[in-house]
Amino acid sequence: MNDPSSSCDVGQQAGPIAAGSRVLRLGPDFRWQGVPLAEYKQAAEHWSGITRTSLAGEVGESTGFHVRYFEIAPGGFSSHEQHAHEHVVIVFRGRGQVQLGETVQDLEFGDVVYVAPHEVHQFRNPFAEPFGFLCIVDAKRDRPTVIHPV
Amino acid sequence: MNDPSSSCDVGQQAGPIAAGSRVLRLGPDFRWQGVPLAEYKQAAEHWSGITRTSLAGEVGESTGFHVRYFEIAPGGFSSHEQHAHEHVVIVFRGRGQVQLGETVQDLEFGDVVYVAPHEVHQFRNPFAEPFGFLCIVDAKRDRPTVIHPV
Repeated sequence: MNDPSSSCDVGQQAGPIAAGSRVLRLGPDFRWQGVPLAEYKQAAEHWSGITRTSLAGEVGESTGFHVRYFEIAPGGFSSHEQHAHEHVVIVFRGRGQVQLGETVQDLEFGDVVYVAPHEVHQFRNPFAEPFGFLCIVDAKRDRPTVIHPV
Repeated sequence: MNDPSSSCDVGQQAGPIAAGSRVLRLGPDFRWQGVPLAEYKQAAEHWSGITRTSLAGEVGESTGFHVRYFEIAPGGFSSHEQHAHEHVVIVFRGRGQVQLGETVQDLEFGDVVYVAPHEVHQFRNPFAEPFGFLCIVDAKRDRPTVIHPV
């Protein structure tokens, strides 16, 4: 329930930016100007090579959702996990893979992934360039369960 | 309150796709495969040249948010409007402009716009190529008020 140790909230918090309307500029190397880069979640063995950028919903807004940008380095992967809350993922940079249940699919720019409640899933980057995607979740959400270490 | 005549819900509804996890593939010309294109809202004098694609939240999901892709043709513009609900916009194709209050700013790929509650705003495309952006809103939201025709 928006637990600070959930996969979505762990790591360095973005500092407050402003409560009013604003534009966040995309700078070089897919870094947004003035927006801190955070670790994906607390260090563990079940994920590798991921950064997280909080773009909206966690710095003073009152939206019922959070918008984050994740980037997986070549060879990296997210936790193989499940939870009741849904993910909406939109590929923004490079390409990668998603495992939904037992099925692995390649992903390219603009592909949209909907992860249904309780679906076991994992994002991976077996390619040579960074794999970046937007991930939108409800602000109030349950904590993920890691299915097994990779 | 998610009124069907709000700017976010008017127009042709996307048909149901599937309740389970899924990947929506981006095809040529920024059209997602199997996802219908809709009009921005019911025809009126205060907007021009906009299409809307519903990517998540309106076809069987239970997310507390909706994810839509809007595209504004060269010379087009959205309603000059305000509402209590917040917008999070991420530029995805081409470039355009946003007016927030009295300020007009150019937007390029990856720029993130947060429209605060009750901020008067408008998106415009004065450029030669299509201007496309993702727009995320709470599923439950109030109806916009058009400030004045352009």
